[in-house]
Amino acid sequence: MRLKSYACGAWIEGEGKGVVLKSAITGEPVAEISSKGIDYAAMLKYGREVGGPALRALSFHQRAIKLKELGLYLQERKEEFYELSKATGATRSDSWIDIEGGTGTLFAYSSKGRRELPNGQIYIDGNPEILSRKGTFVGQHVYLPLEGVAIHINAFNFPCWGMLEKLAPTFIAGVPSIIKPASQTAYLTELMVQRIIESGILPEGSLQLISGSVGDLLDHVTCQDAVTFTGSASTGLMLRQHPAIINNSVRFTMEADSLNSSILGLDAEPGTEEFDLYIKEVVREMTVKCGQKCTAIRRAIVPRHLAHAVIDALKVRLDRVIVGNPDDEGVTMGALASSDQCAEVRDRVGELTNSCDIVYGDPASSASDGGAFLKPILLYCDQPLTSPEVHKIEAFGPVSTVVPYGDVAEAVQISRMGQGSLVSSIFTYDDEFAKAMVMGLGAWHGRLLIANRDCAKESTGHGSPLPYLIHGGPGRAGGGQEMGGIRGVLHYMQCVALQGSPSTLSAVTDKWIPGARRIEDTVHPFRKTIEELRIGEGIISDTRVITLDDIEHFAEFSGDKFYAHMDEEAAKANPFFEGRVAHGYFIVSAAAGLFVDPAPGPVLANYGLENLRFLTPLNPGDSIQVTFTCKQKVPRVNEEYGEVRWDCQVKNQHGDLVATYDVLTLVAKKSAV
Amino acid sequence: MRLKSYACGAWIEGEGKGVVLKSAITGEPVAEISSKGIDYAAMLKYGREVGGPALRALSFHQRAIKLKELGLYLQERKEEFYELSKATGATRSDSWIDIEGGTGTLFAYSSKGRRELPNGQIYIDGNPEILSRKGTFVGQHVYLPLEGVAIHINAFNFPCWGMLEKLAPTFIAGVPSIIKPASQTAYLTELMVQRIIESGILPEGSLQLISGSVGDLLDHVTCQDAVTFTGSASTGLMLRQHPAIINNSVRFTMEADSLNSSILGLDAEPGTEEFDLYIKEVVREMTVKCGQKCTAIRRAIVPRHLAHAVIDALKVRLDRVIVGNPDDEGVTMGALASSDQCAEVRDRVGELTNSCDIVYGDPASSASDGGAFLKPILLYCDQPLTSPEVHKIEAFGPVSTVVPYGDVAEAVQISRMGQGSLVSSIFTYDDEFAKAMVMGLGAWHGRLLIANRDCAKESTGHGSPLPYLIHGGPGRAGGGQEMGGIRGVLHYMQCVALQGSPSTLSAVTDKWIPGARRIEDTVHPFRKTIEELRIGEGIISDTRVITLDDIEHFAEFSGDKFYAHMDEEAAKANPFFEGRVAHGYFIVSAAAGLFVDPAPGPVLANYGLENLRFLTPLNPGDSIQVTFTCKQKVPRVNEEYGEVRWDCQVKNQHGDLVATYDVLTLVAKKSAV
Repeated sequence: MRLKSYACGAWIEGEGKGVVLKSAITGEPVAEISSKGIDYAAMLKYGREVGGPALRALSFHQRAIKLKELGLYLQERKEEFYELSKATGATRSDSWIDIEGGTGTLFAYSSKGRRELPNGQIYIDGNPEILSRKGTFVGQHVYLPLEGVAIHINAFNFPCWGMLEKLAPTFIAGVPSIIKPASQTAYLTELMVQRIIESGILPEGSLQLISGSVGDLLDHVTCQDAVTFTGSASTGLMLRQHPAIINNSVRFTMEADSLNSSILGLDAEPGTEEFDLYIKEVVREMTVKCGQKCTAIRRAIVPRHLAHAVIDALKVRLDRVIVGNPDDEGVTMGALASSDQCAEVRDRVGELTNSCDIVYGDPASSASDGGAFLKPILLYCDQPLTSPEVHKIEAFGPVSTVVPYGDVAEAVQISRMGQGSLVSSIFTYDDEFAKAMVMGLGAWHGRLLIANRDCAKESTGHGSPLPYLIHGGPGRAGGGQEMGGIRGVLHYMQCVALQGSPSTLSAVTDKWIPGARRIEDTVHPFRKTIEELRIGEGIISDTRVITLDDIEHFAEFSGDKFYAHMDEEAAKANPFFEGRVAHGYFIVSAAAGLFVDPAPGPVLANYGLENLRFLTPLNPGDSIQVTFTCKQKVPRVNEEYGEVRWDCQVKNQHGDLVATYDVLTLVAKKSAV
Repeated sequence: MRLKSYACGAWIEGEGKGVVLKSAITGEPVAEISSKGIDYAAMLKYGREVGGPALRALSFHQRAIKLKELGLYLQERKEEFYELSKATGATRSDSWIDIEGGTGTLFAYSSKGRRELPNGQIYIDGNPEILSRKGTFVGQHVYLPLEGVAIHINAFNFPCWGMLEKLAPTFIAGVPSIIKPASQTAYLTELMVQRIIESGILPEGSLQLISGSVGDLLDHVTCQDAVTFTGSASTGLMLRQHPAIINNSVRFTMEADSLNSSILGLDAEPGTEEFDLYIKEVVREMTVKCGQKCTAIRRAIVPRHLAHAVIDALKVRLDRVIVGNPDDEGVTMGALASSDQCAEVRDRVGELTNSCDIVYGDPASSASDGGAFLKPILLYCDQPLTSPEVHKIEAFGPVSTVVPYGDVAEAVQISRMGQGSLVSSIFTYDDEFAKAMVMGLGAWHGRLLIANRDCAKESTGHGSPLPYLIHGGPGRAGGGQEMGGIRGVLHYMQCVALQGSPSTLSAVTDKWIPGARRIEDTVHPFRKTIEELRIGEGIISDTRVITLDDIEHFAEFSGDKFYAHMDEEAAKANPFFEGRVAHGYFIVSAAAGLFVDPAPGPVLANYGLENLRFLTPLNPGDSIQVTFTCKQKVPRVNEEYGEVRWDCQVKNQHGDLVATYDVLTLVAKKSAV
C-alpha cells in the first residue's frame, strides 16, 4: 500500500519508489511512503488562500464546535485505528494514549474555546490601558489569526495524538495546518486524516497532509506561517536554522526529547505511600510506549541512602513486565517502533555505560525475532556530578537510570544538569521539600508534577502532557511551548496593541470601553433580545439618596454590622473613612434597584459579577446614580440564549465613581422570545 | 576620553587603540571606545552568581520600588544627560524622548509591578486548572525568573531609553542585565550607567555595561540567558543564527527597523481634522530624531485622488523645518547620528529613486559642513504594487514616501507588502474603515494607532512605543515583543505548569486553591493582622434560612423587583428557575452578615469583589452557609496595610454551591494596630 498525501484538495501519491515501512511486531511491510513530486509551494498557497479565509470566516465558537464533531466522528471509528496501531508495536493501552488521548484533546479544546473565547473573530487580551489623563486615548491588546499556514512536523511515537494536539489549538486560532508525520508510523496518521477529510467537518484547506519528506516546503514560509517540530534535538536545531525561517522571523516551536528527572523526596522512605507511588511511576514510564515518550523519566533521582532500596523495588516490578506481541495473552509491553530504533537504543545504552552500570536487563536481549522487541534496562550512575553522559544521552526506549543525591541542593543541581527538560516530578509528602524543588527547578522545566498520597488516585502521572497545561521546556527540550489551554491557541495568532479613542476601539473590538459613546434608547435594554442589543446601549438611572436609616436597616437585615457602618467614632478612626459609610453590598443592591426593569423579557438571569471595586466611600445623605451599558455579547451557537456583560458605574451626587463592576446576565435570542 | 565598561563589579577600560566617536554636530571627537580584553564569560558568570541571587531575593514590589527610586535619581541629574545628548545631534525634544521617555518607562514599570504583581517571587498565571473529577489533582501555571543573564544589544538612536525600556521589565522579573549600546552614541549610555552604579540603588551584579563590541560573549549563553537585539535586520539575523543561541534554545528577541505605514482614510479629505492631523504626523515622524526611529512612517499610504493634496500640504509644512545645530535659535531638526549615517541614507534614497520620484528635498543638500546634517526628503511612488524598493528599502533618516491606493483592499495590500512592521497608523473618522484596516493589518503589525479628532489632543502619536503596550512586530520587524506592561516582564521568566494536590500547590504558590486544607482557629480571622493571617485560615459560618419574607423585604428595600424574585408563575416559566428565587445581591449581603466580625480590628475595608458566580438558584426555605478562607496576602512595602483576598463559598442545605467569589479587603500590618 502506497500512502497518499492530501494536498490542495486532492489525495495524491508520491512518485518513484517509496520507502518501505515495516511492522514493529512482525517486521513485515505495512506500507510504502513517498512524497516525491508534490508541489509544496502550491500546498502553502492553497492553505493560505482556501483554508485560511474559510477558517477566519468562522467564529471561535463555530470552530470549537467543529472540533467536538470531529472528535465524536473519530471516536466512533476508533477500533479501525486501534487495529492499525498494532503495527507500531503499541499495546491497547499505548494506543489508547495516542488515539483517545488525541480525540480527548479535541474535546478539551472545543470546551475551552467555547468557555474562554468570545463567539467572534478577535481575542481581547487584558483590560484597556488608559494612556491619557482625560481618557480620550486608550490602548487595547487583541489577537488576530496569522494569515499563513502552520506546518506541523511530528514525531513517530504518537501518530494520532501528535497530529491532533497541534491541530486543535491551530484550528481554534483560525489557522490552517499542514501535517507531516514521521514516516515510520505515518500509515496511522494517513488513515486518520482520510477519515477526517471524508467526514467533511473541517473547512476545505484547513488540513493538508504530507506522507513523506517536506521537500522544499520550508523554503516558501513567510512571517505569517508557523512551524512546529517534535522530534530529535539534532533535526530540530537544523530546521531552526533554515534560511527562510531565520530571514522571515518565522515562529518556530520545538519540542525535543529531554533528560527528564523524577525526584524521590528525602521523606519518602520505603514503607511510605510516596515510595510505592514512585516505584510504580518509574516502571510505568519505562514501559508505556516502550519508553518512547519525550516525557519519560530518564533520570530517577533518589536519596543516596535509599538508592539500593529503590533499585530492589524497581527490579521486583520490572520482573513482572511481559514483553511481546500485544495480541498475545498477558503481554504488558509491546515493541519499539522499528528495529532501527532498537539498535539506536542499544547504542545509547552502550554510551551510558561509560559512567553508569546496568543493574537490570540486558541490551542484547530481545523477546522474539522479527519484531523490534527490547526488554527494560535499568542503570545506576553512582557519581552523577562527574558523569556527563547520564544528563545528555537519551536512550529513547525502556531505559532509565537511578541517580543518587545527598541533600536538597544536590538534587536540584543534578536535575538541572539536564540543561532544560520538559517535565520533572517530585514524590514527597513534605510541602517544604516540594516548594524547594519548585523554586530550584521551575526555571528549567515546562511542567513539574508533585505527587503524593493526596492526589495519587486522580493523578494523570509524570508522562502525560495535558491540553490544559503547557507542554514544552527550555534548553535541551527545545524551548517550545504547546497547548496550555488558550495559551496554545494564541501561539498561532498575532498580538497587536490597538490605540485610539474609546469609541473607535469599542467599534473595532465589539466590546464597549469606558469613555466610549453610549446609545440611549427609549426602550429599556432589558426589553431587548441579544440580537437587538447594541454594544454601548444602556440607561442612566434615577438617583437614590442613601440615608442613615437605610444603612442601619441594611445592617439589621443582612446581619453585617461591621463597625464602619454602625459607629461614627470608630469609622472616623479608620484610615479610609470620614465617618459611617454605606455597605458595599448595599450599594450594589440599591444600584440593581435602579437599573433593573422587572417585567419578564429577554433578560433571563444575573449569573455573576466581575471586577467590583468600591472607589469612593458613601456617607449618609449621599445619593447614587447608575450608568448601565451593554459591554459585550456572547451569543451561543447551540443555545437559545447568550451571555451579555454590562458595564455598571455607580456615581455619587458629585459625579465621583462610587463603584464600578461588570454585571453578567443571560439574555434570550429572538428565536426564544 | 576612553569609555569604560562596567564588568564584574568594576569600571574597566578596554585595551588597545579605541574607535573614535565624533560629534554629530561638529564632527569633533567626543570619546574613544574599546572593550578589548574584557573577560566576557566572567561577566556572565558574575551576573548569574552575584546579580541573579540578589535580585531573586527581592520581591516584585521591592524591585519595583527600586526602579522608582532610580527614576527619581536620574531625573534629578537629567540636565547632565541633556548636555551630552547634544553630541548625538538631538534637539531638546529629541533628547526628551530618550532621557525622560527612559525614566518614564522606569516609573511605568514600577507602578505596574506594584499594581499587577504580587509582593512575592512567584507570578501566578491564570486560575487553577481542575484536572480530575474529585478535584484532588489540579494544575496551576506560574512564572519563575530565568536564572541567567539578559544581554541587551541596543541601537544608536536611543542611548538612554533603549537601555531603560529593556532594563525595567528585566529587573522587575528578577533577572540581571548586561547592556551593550551601539558604539556611535555609547558615551551617553556610559554616563547614565555611571550615575546608576554610583546611586547604589540596584543590587550589585544586576547591571553590567559593555562599551565596545560583545567579543565572545554570545558563545557562553545557556538556556537560562536571554538575548535581545534592537538594530538593523541584517545584524539581527546574524545574531539569531549564533550557534550557542540555536543549540541552547536561547530566547532571542529582535526588534528591527521596518517599513512602517500610515494610512489616510478615504473619508479624510482636505478640510477634515484627520487630514490636518495626518500631515502634521507625517512631518513629525520625518523630523523627530531626524527620522532615525525604527517606528517612523516610511510609507504614507493615501487615497490616489488625494495624493497631490497630501504632497502639497506636506511641502508647506516641511518648508518650515529648520535644520541645524540644536543650540542655535529656531532650529527644529538636528543632525543624524554620524556622517556615515548621512551617507547611508543618501545611498538608500538613491536606491528608492529606481521606482520613486523625489518630490521634495535634495539628497545632496546639507545644512552646514562638519556635522551630519540632512534636510528632509519626500518621495512619491506612483506604482506601489510593482515597485519592490519602497516596501523593502529603509532610508533611516528624514525620509518618507507617499504611496497612493485605490480602495480599502489595495490599502491593506500595500501596507502588508512591508512584510511585517512595528506599527501602522490609520487616520480616519470612519470606524468601519478603521475596523477593516485592523482586520486586514492586525496580523502584520505589533501596534496599530487609529487617529482621529476624538483622541488627537491626547494621542502619543504614531512613533511612540509605550511601556503599557507591546513593541515589536512580525517578519521584517524582527518578530520580537517588548514591554506591553507585565507581558514584557514575563519574557524574562519561565512559565511552568505545576500539578499536584490543592494543598501542595497552595503551599508552593502561597495562594489558597479550592480543595486545599483549611485552618480553623478559635480566633476570628478579622481579628488578625496581615502578618498573623495564614493562607488557608478561615471560618465556616452559621447558617441562615432565606424566607419568602426576606426576598420580598429585600426587593422592597433595594428596589429590585425583577419578576424571578416576585412572581412564582413567571419565575417557573424562566428556563433556569423552578420558582421564585432569592436575589443574588441578597445572597452576598446575607453571606457578609454571616462571615463579618463587626468590631474594629485589623480588617479595615472591603474594597471589592471578584469572579462572583451564582451557581445554584436559592428558593424560599433554603438556607445558606459560608466557607470563608484567607486566599492570598499582598502586604505593601511602603504602607501600613496590604490586600487580603478571601475565598468565599456559599452553600445551601444540600451542600450545593450557591455562589463563589473572592472578597477583597485591606488589612492592617502589625505595626499599624
